Amino acid sequence: MAKLLLRGMVLPMSGAEDFYPQGEVAVDGDRIVSVGAKGSAPRGFEPDRLLDRSNDVIMPGLINTHTHAAMTLLRGYADDLPLMPWLEDKVWPFEAKLSDEDIYWGTMLALTEMIRSGTTTMSDMYASMDRVAEAVLSAGTRAALARGMIGSAANGLQALRENIELYRACHRAGEGRLRVMFGPHAPYTCPGDFLQRVKSEAESLGAGIHIHVAETEAEIETIRQEHGRTPVQWLNDLGLFDGPVLAAHCVHLTPADMEILAEKQVCVAHNPESNMKLNSGTAPVPELTRRGVVVSLGTDGASSNNNLDLFGEMRSAALQQKLRVDSSALPAYEVLEMATVKGARALGFEEVGMLAPGFKADLITVDFDQPHFYPRFSIPAHLVYAAHAGDVRDVMVNGRMIMEERRLLSLDEKKICAEAEKRAKGIARELL
Amino acid sequence: MAKLLLRGMVLPMSGAEDFYPQGEVAVDGDRIVSVGAKGSAPRGFEPDRLLDRSNDVIMPGLINTHTHAAMTLLRGYADDLPLMPWLEDKVWPFEAKLSDEDIYWGTMLALTEMIRSGTTTMSDMYASMDRVAEAVLSAGTRAALARGMIGSAANGLQALRENIELYRACHRAGEGRLRVMFGPHAPYTCPGDFLQRVKSEAESLGAGIHIHVAETEAEIETIRQEHGRTPVQWLNDLGLFDGPVLAAHCVHLTPADMEILAEKQVCVAHNPESNMKLNSGTAPVPELTRRGVVVSLGTDGASSNNNLDLFGEMRSAALQQKLRVDSSALPAYEVLEMATVKGARALGFEEVGMLAPGFKADLITVDFDQPHFYPRFSIPAHLVYAAHAGDVRDVMVNGRMIMEERRLLSLDEKKICAEAEKRAKGIARELL
Repeated sequence: MAKLLLRGMVLPMSGAEDFYPQGEVAVDGDRIVSVGAKGSAPRGFEPDRLLDRSNDVIMPGLINTHTHAAMTLLRGYADDLPLMPWLEDKVWPFEAKLSDEDIYWGTMLALTEMIRSGTTTMSDMYASMDRVAEAVLSAGTRAALARGMIGSAANGLQALRENIELYRACHRAGEGRLRVMFGPHAPYTCPGDFLQRVKSEAESLGAGIHIHVAETEAEIETIRQEHGRTPVQWLNDLGLFDGPVLAAHCVHLTPADMEILAEKQVCVAHNPESNMKLNSGTAPVPELTRRGVVVSLGTDGASSNNNLDLFGEMRSAALQQKLRVDSSALPAYEVLEMATVKGARALGFEEVGMLAPGFKADLITVDFDQPHFYPRFSIPAHLVYAAHAGDVRDVMVNGRMIMEERRLLSLDEKKICAEAEKRAKGIARELL
Repeated sequence: MAKLLLRGMVLPMSGAEDFYPQGEVAVDGDRIVSVGAKGSAPRGFEPDRLLDRSNDVIMPGLINTHTHAAMTLLRGYADDLPLMPWLEDKVWPFEAKLSDEDIYWGTMLALTEMIRSGTTTMSDMYASMDRVAEAVLSAGTRAALARGMIGSAANGLQALRENIELYRACHRAGEGRLRVMFGPHAPYTCPGDFLQRVKSEAESLGAGIHIHVAETEAEIETIRQEHGRTPVQWLNDLGLFDGPVLAAHCVHLTPADMEILAEKQVCVAHNPESNMKLNSGTAPVPELTRRGVVVSLGTDGASSNNNLDLFGEMRSAALQQKLRVDSSALPAYEVLEMATVKGARALGFEEVGMLAPGFKADLITVDFDQPHFYPRFSIPAHLVYAAHAGDVRDVMVNGRMIMEERRLLSLDEKKICAEAEKRAKGIARELL
C-alpha cells in the first residue's frame, strides 16, 4: 500500500498541549507512522505522495457515537410537533414502511453526509443491519453496529437472533472497520428478562451493549412506577453494566446514578441537539466527566436533529452546558475530545480517535483559509465555535482517501441523493 | 442597469404558504420586478442574463440585527472563561488598543464572513463608525449603523456628537444602503440624563435607537438597586421608547416588561448563541411574539459567538426555545421570518427582507443539491435545522451580485484575512 505524507497544522488530540502549526503526518498503508513538526517523519520514509495542506488543520476523523443512520429518510418529514404526535402520527408509521432496501439507501445518504462533514466512524442502532454493514463497507468508513431490539415487541427474540447473526457475520469485518454491539432499545421498551438474555448473549460473545438510558422525564417516571428505581439503578441491578455499555442520552440522572455509571465504566453518548429539539433536557456532562465517566458525542437520527454534522453538535454541546452551568463550562478542547478520543473509547475502537504512531489512519483536513477562521488565535476554539460541515476538505479512513478536495471518492453521491428522495417521497405518498 | 432572471426554488418569505418549487425572480436594476412560478415574469421582460439555479433555494438575504462587527478581531482570543475575567482581563484591554484602521479591517473581515454566509444586512454598534460605513459601502452590503456610547465614560458626549455626525454624513448613503441609528450602550452604562439627551437628539433627526436591554441578571439587579425598577420600566419611564427602538437581548423580562415592549412597539434583537455562551439565559421569544413584539435575530460580536453565521443562529434560536418550552416552540418558518422580514422591520429598512415586486433586490441562493438537504420534505425545516454557512452560493444586494458561485466579487478576501491576522496578533503581542 501507498506511503503518504500530509503537511499542515496538525492537531493530534493526544493532549491539550500537542499542536504543530507546521506539522506533518506520515501514513504507510492503513497506519500512521509518525506525527510531529515538519521534518519529523522517520529517516528513510519515502512518500509516494506529498499532500500539502499548509492552510488546513489535520486532525482525527470525528466519531458519531449515537445515530440511527437510515432516519435521514425522515429528514424534514415532521418537525416542530409535540413529542407523542410526532412519534405516533409521523415517525412510527413512516418507519413501519421501510424496506431493507430503503434502509440501505437511507444509510448511504447518511454516510454521504457524514463523510462530507468529517465523520469517519459512526455508532448505529437500527434494523436491517446486514444492509447497513454493506453500506458502511462500500462507503469505506468505520462503524459500531447494533441491531435495535424492542424486547416487548413480537419480533424481540427474532431481533436478538439477528443481532447475534450480525455479530458473527460482521464483527471485525472490513479490515477491522466494523464492530458489532448489542442494541436493546431502552429500559422502558425491553423487559428485565429480555435485557438479561441480551446481556448473557453479549457476554458470551464478548460484545458491548448500546442502549438508550434516561432520555426523558417520562422514562424516569415509567421505570419508577414499574420498578421503584431510576433507569440506571434498574439496569445496574439487572447486571447489564457488568460488561461494556454505551448509554445514549443520560439526560436525567441522580448523583447516585452518576456514581454507578462511573464505577461500572459505562460510557455515555451525549446528543445535545436532539435533546434540545425534543425538549428532553440537558445532560449533566461536566458532572459525569468530573466523576471519570467517558462522555462522547452523537447526533441521534436526522429526524430529531436534522443533520449529522458533528461540528454543529460540538458547538451545541458547549453552548448548552454554558447556558446551564456557566461560561467556563465544557471548554473547546474537551468538546473536541468527546468527538474524537472519547468517541473511540466509547465504541471500543482502540486504534483511532487520535493521530499517533501505530494508530489507524483515520483523519480529516479542515480548510482554515476562510474568513471565519481568522484571526488564528485558537485552533480548538475555532473548530468548536466557528467551524461547520462545509469546511472539511479531505477524509481518510484506514489509510484510504474517501474524500479529496471535497469530492467523494467512495460513493456515487448523485445516485444516493436521488434514490433517497424517490424512496422517502414514495413512503410519504403512501401515508397520505 | 441590467435585467436579470433567476430561476430556482423560490421562498419569498411573504407568507408561510408562498413557495415556488419551479419559480423565478425578475430583477431590473436594484429592484425586484416579479416573483412567482416559472414563466411569471411580465410579458416584455427581456433579461440580459438568465441565472439557472434550479437546485437552489432563492430567498431574501439574511439580516443580522445585532453585532459588533470589528470584534471579529477577537475571535478565539479568549473563550471558556467566567464573564468578568473574560471582559476585564481580555476583551476590554484588547478593545482599548483598537485603532480606526483596526476597526476598519475587523469590519471588513466580518463583512467577508457575512457575505459568505448569506447575510446582506447588518446592524452594527461600535466605534469609528465612519470607517465602518466605508467598509459597508465598499463591500456592497446594507447596514444600520450606531455609534456605541458609554454615557458614563469621559467620552460619552463626544460619542454622541460622533453619532449625530454619522447620521448627517451617512444616513441613506450608498443608494439608501446605509441607515444610522443612535447607540447608547445600555441602561447600566448610560445615566438617565444621558439617555434623555440621546433620545432628544435622535427624535429631532427622526432616527431610531439601538440599545442593549436586560441581557443579564446582574443588570436587572443593578437597575433595581439604582432605580427601583426593571431596565424596561426604567427606559420606558425615561421616555426612550416613544420613538423607534431596537432592544438587543431582552433575556430577563417580566410580563409587565413584555407588555411595555409590545405597547411601545419596541423591536427585540435576539442573540441565542451569545446568550448561551455567556450564560446570560434564554429570552422569552414565543411570549414576546405572542404579544405582537417584532423579534429579529443577531449574532452579537464574534468574541461571544464566535461566528457571524445566521444559519447556525437560526438553528440555535429554535433549539433553545424547544429546550425551554416544548418541541413545538418556535417552528422553522417563524425562525426564518426573524432572520428576514422581521429583521428588516426592526431596522427600518422597508424594502428588503422579502422577495416581492417593487422591493430592493437583496437575495441569496442556497445550494440544495447536497446530501444534507435530501429528501426535500420541507424547505423551511432544512434551512433552519440542516443548512450551514457554506451552503450559500450567490449573494445579491441592491441588484448587484457581490458573491457568485462562492466567489466574492466586491472584496479582496485574501488581503482582508491577512490584514486582520496581522493586526489582531499585533495587539495580542502588545498585551502579553
